[in-house]
Amino acid sequence: MPLLVTGSIGIDTVTTPYGVSENCIGGSAVYFSMAASFFTSVRLIGAVGSDCPFDLAEVFAGRNVDLAGLERRSLSKTFRWKGSYHDTMNEAITEKVELNVLSEDPPVVPDQYKDSKFVFLANTAPALQHKLLEQIESPTFVAADTMNCWIVGHLDPLKALLQKIDCLIINEDEARALAGERNLVTAGRKILDMGPRVVIIKKGESGSMMCDDEGQTFILPAWPSAEVKDPTGAGDSFAGALMGYLAKSRKTDFDSLKTAIAYGTVVSSFTISDFSLQGLISINKSDIDNRLKTLAKLTKF
Amino acid sequence: MPLLVTGSIGIDTVTTPYGVSENCIGGSAVYFSMAASFFTSVRLIGAVGSDCPFDLAEVFAGRNVDLAGLERRSLSKTFRWKGSYHDTMNEAITEKVELNVLSEDPPVVPDQYKDSKFVFLANTAPALQHKLLEQIESPTFVAADTMNCWIVGHLDPLKALLQKIDCLIINEDEARALAGERNLVTAGRKILDMGPRVVIIKKGESGSMMCDDEGQTFILPAWPSAEVKDPTGAGDSFAGALMGYLAKSRKTDFDSLKTAIAYGTVVSSFTISDFSLQGLISINKSDIDNRLKTLAKLTKF
Repeated sequence: MPLLVTGSIGIDTVTTPYGVSENCIGGSAVYFSMAASFFTSVRLIGAVGSDCPFDLAEVFAGRNVDLAGLERRSLSKTFRWKGSYHDTMNEAITEKVELNVLSEDPPVVPDQYKDSKFVFLANTAPALQHKLLEQIESPTFVAADTMNCWIVGHLDPLKALLQKIDCLIINEDEARALAGERNLVTAGRKILDMGPRVVIIKKGESGSMMCDDEGQTFILPAWPSAEVKDPTGAGDSFAGALMGYLAKSRKTDFDSLKTAIAYGTVVSSFTISDFSLQGLISINKSDIDNRLKTLAKLTKF
Repeated sequence: MPLLVTGSIGIDTVTTPYGVSENCIGGSAVYFSMAASFFTSVRLIGAVGSDCPFDLAEVFAGRNVDLAGLERRSLSKTFRWKGSYHDTMNEAITEKVELNVLSEDPPVVPDQYKDSKFVFLANTAPALQHKLLEQIESPTFVAADTMNCWIVGHLDPLKALLQKIDCLIINEDEARALAGERNLVTAGRKILDMGPRVVIIKKGESGSMMCDDEGQTFILPAWPSAEVKDPTGAGDSFAGALMGYLAKSRKTDFDSLKTAIAYGTVVSSFTISDFSLQGLISINKSDIDNRLKTLAKLTKF
């Protein structure tokens, strides 16, 4: 079943203790689509400016990623992000952001995408996420990501969005900020009260946690990576594999969500093993399945 | 099979967002023994001064903790620690330490303890850990804990100790410092090269990781605690339950170590649910076994 994603397409410059990757392709929708394409066909909605040095058709060549929702705006500039990671590389330090095309009107949903059942709204202004979602006829499972700046500055539209989605996928600091609660288990429960039936909290190298409105909980450690070269896109790859697995299996019960989280964990571990998309480009589905089996073994007692 | 432990017995004053616990009983050997006593008989070696307000026989009443190795020194003062936890409570802020009896000669190992097969050397000066270990005739499985101050200031005796033990149980910051390596997986491997056949890294609310010299790895999340009142003693309770289970089962193969870590995870989750020993005093073995079963369910996909 096709999976719809809307999010950013960016030009990233990333510095880590392993080196610098200048003007490489990035953005939430790009990492998400690449990760999801191992599982199902992807419908990408996003916009780039005239300065975009990447041919997205080439980036996704041989993968099942539909670019009918990609807008090339001749009078706009592409979103750019410059950041760095230090020490344990758990946190990105943003050095420069140029929103550019992301500060304009959001892309239009093509008619042939409006029947999408599985939808992911990557991080952007909650009002825009809402606007996009309204164009989808009758989605089955909608997940969204958000960020501290929207929690602080746009709480009302964010709360309105939470009423409309099934699942929030969010990192631990954002979960604490949104819930106003330092304990993550309690924070998860408080966010469930705001609307979604499932909350998935990403904890970086500490793994992830899921809770749902029936009182069920799932916890999974991160893959024990011996070498992390560039954490950029880890969260988006996690969400991409997770949603890709769900769309492929057409199921959203708790057991399916558990397997989906395990796939998200595994695919994001490949993402961070190299700069930009290199870690994802160099693998195939059987690498992912093998690592999933190993992860199950590593965590079983 | 009896389990020998040597470590501190202390008078703690702890402040957390949930309140203050003044002059309560603490110390690594106390938390360890309490946790281990759910599994096996414990032989405690430690010392207190004349100012100690606690009757250890009363503290451990009804539990299988042998106090023949407890020294009451009339001219000494008991170890005292004053600390606090803030925000996410992941880190203890030490406000005051009075080593007192811990800065004197270590306690003597009673003759009847010298046949101990399972031994835990809780955190203290590595030379003292070494001195104590030399008094044990032919131990089967020796585990030790250590701390940043020994890694920085006493690296040579610590490295000598690592040659003599089977297992190091250490927290993540200490593992990074000891290995001189920020990546925990690589840090674990580097510590294995220093001597022990097993390294267990405690990551607080992020769970734990184990690796051994045969290339095996195990990772487990922490119990998802909705309320953490006082993290003091979590690491010592973890080690106590872990070693208690191994001594009880008389096995130290990798599968047994996995189950031991799961027991450590569960018992420490009870410790942090209340101040001082309250969380451990209020439970029984079946509470522990039930939570272990739930943990297995929560982490399975």
